[in-house]
Amino acid sequence: MSNLLREGERLDDLQRSNLQIIQNPAKFCFGMDAVLLSGFVTVKKGENVLDLGTGTGIIPILLSAKTQGSHFTGLEIQEEMAEMADRSVRLNKITDRVEICQGDLKEASAIFGASSFDVVTCNPPYMNQNHGLKNPDDAKAIARHEVLCTLEDVIRESARCLKPGGRFAMVHRPHRLAEMMRLMAAYGLEPKRIRMVHPYVESEANMVLLEASRGGNPWMKAEPPVIVFEKPGVYTREIRKVYGY
Amino acid sequence: MSNLLREGERLDDLQRSNLQIIQNPAKFCFGMDAVLLSGFVTVKKGENVLDLGTGTGIIPILLSAKTQGSHFTGLEIQEEMAEMADRSVRLNKITDRVEICQGDLKEASAIFGASSFDVVTCNPPYMNQNHGLKNPDDAKAIARHEVLCTLEDVIRESARCLKPGGRFAMVHRPHRLAEMMRLMAAYGLEPKRIRMVHPYVESEANMVLLEASRGGNPWMKAEPPVIVFEKPGVYTREIRKVYGY
Repeated sequence: MSNLLREGERLDDLQRSNLQIIQNPAKFCFGMDAVLLSGFVTVKKGENVLDLGTGTGIIPILLSAKTQGSHFTGLEIQEEMAEMADRSVRLNKITDRVEICQGDLKEASAIFGASSFDVVTCNPPYMNQNHGLKNPDDAKAIARHEVLCTLEDVIRESARCLKPGGRFAMVHRPHRLAEMMRLMAAYGLEPKRIRMVHPYVESEANMVLLEASRGGNPWMKAEPPVIVFEKPGVYTREIRKVYGY
Repeated sequence: MSNLLREGERLDDLQRSNLQIIQNPAKFCFGMDAVLLSGFVTVKKGENVLDLGTGTGIIPILLSAKTQGSHFTGLEIQEEMAEMADRSVRLNKITDRVEICQGDLKEASAIFGASSFDVVTCNPPYMNQNHGLKNPDDAKAIARHEVLCTLEDVIRESARCLKPGGRFAMVHRPHRLAEMMRLMAAYGLEPKRIRMVHPYVESEANMVLLEASRGGNPWMKAEPPVIVFEKPGVYTREIRKVYGY
């Protein structure tokens, strides 16, 4: 299997269904946000899922193990990253259920066709203040800053790619929650479930998980907070579970 | 002081600054939502505050003790309720800082003038499904259901009554959060702070506290969750503190 690894890459064990993932720490490694999103999103048996800006492919790879969805597509604009994610899929021998496509999420509905997915997920770049970015074409900058796509692009394309009644789930920073809600309203996505993620129970949230449906009545629920640490260095039971420890 | 009490009314100690409040259990008693809102809203020294649908007057009465705001106005549509709240203000000898007005919150900006308050608070009726209401003119129905005003009325009038940069704080049910955010956007209120209230750390939120500013940039924070109970029957330290125990 080592022929699947390139220089600078490493192989990480996902602690679930013997899955492994290839990452290059010089480029970008997935974070807790992606893992939490994969545990948050609702994927039912037989559904097909699109992950926008899939990066290492972490979300479709985890969802293939955690859910009974039938098929998972990861769209990634960076060629080198898409190629690496594709190697992870082949390494895990899940090519029948997971496919990585190289392409621009701003064109997702043109690439895959409108109303073609039951579920769309996204762990987008969080930062919209791009002034002063030293290397806007660097893989980490692309993953973290809105260099190649905006929040509006993500929400618009997600809405277009979803079947009516389909679900969109994303993770983002709470400081952009009002903006997320406004954009969802503008593109016909109705928020249905929200979970705040707090490092400690007494600290501000540093992530928010949100699931919306394409269409539907306004009625949502705020689920229990995700608390990450019981005390410094000790994960809560929920986090240990989501990581498969 | 007993001449300030009418039949069916009782006097409750607010556990703060020797404040008391008159309530009539057959009509409506204030809940934890009002107390939490009074602890959540930002009121700075010298600011004036309007409370829409003040009921017993609990919010302006508590804010007069908890903050250094200069003046607090409570607007209440039900004559009997407004009169009772006014008696509570007189009983507490805080008529120099708190005033109760009888009137319809749908006309608040006409009554008080546009851009006339630094802060507006509201603990509105939560329920918008009014079909099957047996007594729509009953005081409890008016406090709980959108019989006399809608969420849009509350948000529109709050926005109009606020000075530019002024703050609007409300408590509501999480199931209407997306609707709240949309209406705030429509009336130029920018959400700035959110806190979810969960009965237990592992349960869904049953209230949400939200503070918005009239105008301003989109940037908000999600504060630590309010957890009400440590275990059945035992309030958390935060709740004991907010109640002054």
